[in-house]
Amino acid sequence: MSSGSIFEPLCQKLGDKVSIKDEDRVLYSYDATGLSSLPSAVTWPTTENDIRDILIFAHKSGIPVVPRGAGTSVTGGPVPVNGGIVLCFSRMNRIVDINPATQTAVVEPGLINGIFKKKVQGLGLFYPPDPSSLDISTLGGNVATCAGGPNAIKYGVTRDYVLGLTCLLPDGRTIRTGVQTSKGVAGYDLTRLLTGSEGTLAVITQITLKLISKPETSRNIQGYFTDISMASEAVTKIMSSGILPNILELMDETSIDSVKNIMNTHVPAKCTAILLAEIDGDKSDVKKKSEHIALFMKKCGATEVNMAATNKEVTELWRARRSISPAVYKLFPFKTSEDIVVPRDKIPLMTFKLKEIGLKTGLTILSYGHAGDGNLHVNIGYNDTSDKNNVEHALRLIFSAALNLGGTISGEHGIGLSKKRFLTMEIGRTELDLMRDIKNIFDPNNILNPGKIFPEDS
Amino acid sequence: MSSGSIFEPLCQKLGDKVSIKDEDRVLYSYDATGLSSLPSAVTWPTTENDIRDILIFAHKSGIPVVPRGAGTSVTGGPVPVNGGIVLCFSRMNRIVDINPATQTAVVEPGLINGIFKKKVQGLGLFYPPDPSSLDISTLGGNVATCAGGPNAIKYGVTRDYVLGLTCLLPDGRTIRTGVQTSKGVAGYDLTRLLTGSEGTLAVITQITLKLISKPETSRNIQGYFTDISMASEAVTKIMSSGILPNILELMDETSIDSVKNIMNTHVPAKCTAILLAEIDGDKSDVKKKSEHIALFMKKCGATEVNMAATNKEVTELWRARRSISPAVYKLFPFKTSEDIVVPRDKIPLMTFKLKEIGLKTGLTILSYGHAGDGNLHVNIGYNDTSDKNNVEHALRLIFSAALNLGGTISGEHGIGLSKKRFLTMEIGRTELDLMRDIKNIFDPNNILNPGKIFPEDS
Repeated sequence: MSSGSIFEPLCQKLGDKVSIKDEDRVLYSYDATGLSSLPSAVTWPTTENDIRDILIFAHKSGIPVVPRGAGTSVTGGPVPVNGGIVLCFSRMNRIVDINPATQTAVVEPGLINGIFKKKVQGLGLFYPPDPSSLDISTLGGNVATCAGGPNAIKYGVTRDYVLGLTCLLPDGRTIRTGVQTSKGVAGYDLTRLLTGSEGTLAVITQITLKLISKPETSRNIQGYFTDISMASEAVTKIMSSGILPNILELMDETSIDSVKNIMNTHVPAKCTAILLAEIDGDKSDVKKKSEHIALFMKKCGATEVNMAATNKEVTELWRARRSISPAVYKLFPFKTSEDIVVPRDKIPLMTFKLKEIGLKTGLTILSYGHAGDGNLHVNIGYNDTSDKNNVEHALRLIFSAALNLGGTISGEHGIGLSKKRFLTMEIGRTELDLMRDIKNIFDPNNILNPGKIFPEDS
Repeated sequence: MSSGSIFEPLCQKLGDKVSIKDEDRVLYSYDATGLSSLPSAVTWPTTENDIRDILIFAHKSGIPVVPRGAGTSVTGGPVPVNGGIVLCFSRMNRIVDINPATQTAVVEPGLINGIFKKKVQGLGLFYPPDPSSLDISTLGGNVATCAGGPNAIKYGVTRDYVLGLTCLLPDGRTIRTGVQTSKGVAGYDLTRLLTGSEGTLAVITQITLKLISKPETSRNIQGYFTDISMASEAVTKIMSSGILPNILELMDETSIDSVKNIMNTHVPAKCTAILLAEIDGDKSDVKKKSEHIALFMKKCGATEVNMAATNKEVTELWRARRSISPAVYKLFPFKTSEDIVVPRDKIPLMTFKLKEIGLKTGLTILSYGHAGDGNLHVNIGYNDTSDKNNVEHALRLIFSAALNLGGTISGEHGIGLSKKRFLTMEIGRTELDLMRDIKNIFDPNNILNPGKIFPEDS
């Protein structure tokens, strides 16, 4: 620590939990978008008291504080765009308690989703939210963005599993929201207000989560189609049948191509769309329902339908699905990662619109994702920063189309930095004013993750 | 309308949708608590524009506006404690849209839960939230209180089914929150902030609800026990087994007695606790699981276990369960209706505490309710208003016990009027200040359902 730094008082208090070294500042300057901005300092608190010290210091000095999980955000959420202090949760990753009798758990925000999932599985329990980043991303980040994942179709999103939060306000005061039980309605629902607030209202220090019983078994079914509209039709048929798969994922032609480019995945000739379903539950139930799903796929024109029989096959399949987003980078140096939602029955129309927008702009547009709940991941791959205006144009067309179909511009990624200029396409002036006023109540000095969610000019 | 009334401008605009007649004022002065306070006027808007007219008039004149569903609240929520205008939703009860393909519906707030439930059932769909008042209570009231019900154990509460809201702010501006799709995270979660805000932040004019597929079948299982701790033990056993019943209700000895007093229900000799379970799903699954549940009950000491074979038996059973609350009035002229929650594994301890508090205060305390999620309805029946201090003392002891066990003072009823003096037992000063500031953003003139939720002296 060079003497005379404004961070000296903080360093004296927190020792090696603070760094102003260039290498640390660079390491914590970016997220999965590739957007970056240097912070002035990086901190790794290990207790709520550490966080309080950091906040009180920052609050007094008017320095931004940017909470950060694992930096897997695809919206620039944890990028310290106004500089300041990165508050990294990697050392606050303890499981405080798992109670099988009440099916609840208390965790610290830095705990990695996948580690937690495995731990509770060992106790016969299940924590459903499963963003693709689950092996890296933290529960704190998941709560801050209200992360979803394939399982959301049956089990809901992170919001549905957050029972209560302990948080610090920017001035260091502790608040406790929600309950430790499965129900509770005393006062306004601050828990869900904070869930999905992207670190702009308060710093989460402890999370109480709801768990459920682990399903007995599960089975994967994949269908290969020569036309994406056939696959979309199968989605509608399955979802209207009363069968509720826990996963129902769609991959379009370009997504399949980009995955084939990096891994040796079996795809039949002429296949331009893949449906990936999973059904979980009791053994007999799963057997029956997986056969029904396979039948629906065949009836809708699937040229091949496979049931993944072994764990290896399932893993291979999922590796392919989870690899789409990184695979795009093998084909293009730049890409955007959007996650529009449209009403489920509008997926065929939306995929048609995406094709149209691709042709109109000459850009490569991939779509894949959670077809069962209408949540499509739309990636645009491009070669050159000179394409940026064209990409911007395409994004506006894509968001417009999604909104016109009754959808939203973000199903689970959040707004962060990369989507804030589009927010007013969806959120009206009055609603935005209310949100801004709420931000002002929690964080009057605007030190918590400033520059996120709200558009500059609104 | 007597000329010279301050409501004359409103009457001229809305005609017979406004009344200042004494008989109407009296009719809309109370709710299911029996608490009452006369409004100055009653209105029955039929459109969002009517509501806007009423709000703009009230906002300008500084007159309270109290939204009212069916008045089934047991907390005094819709009681116009500061006078003003009752905004009754009985004429805004249309189903705007039910879309089976997307499994969503758009409804007006005055629509009765049970009517909606039947309508969607006819389309193979299911709307799970089922407060005991479902045959009378409105979806708007259900959203305003985040109502639960027996089904919550498996299917969650009203919050989990509200996708989006259209509301009016007190100054008449329209806001649209949330989405029309099953997912959406753009901006702060105003939808869940408004859900459970008891009509104090904005007036809901339209609700978008999520639906699910109707389960194929269901089966009821009732277990009769000679000791409530055996029944509690069975609850823990069932819930830890991985079987998730959609209903798991407990009735204690006093609840059984009060029901026996008004209806001819079969109860074996020496029975002091009844467990009422329901399991839904596919036929084969339901058969297997209902047998498991019956077995768990027997193993925990049930002297008799019955499966309701006919619809008539099921109805009879549920009529008994739903009759507890009104039945108490046959035994006592006064009663309180609380709905504490404790962690599920603390139910035996809580029922023991309730017995202790009953003995200590000499009061008759009944408990029954949603044992599966730890949500106990605790009623105190009493004879005389002179008992009030004693009842108050008992309530504080009950809430203290629930909070000490990690619970909450309200699982699904809300705070309203009758519980606001206890709110600070659960909610801290900082959290309450945040809630108050939020109230102030939405309703700066404090005209929306004033005098509710927030304690007077805080």
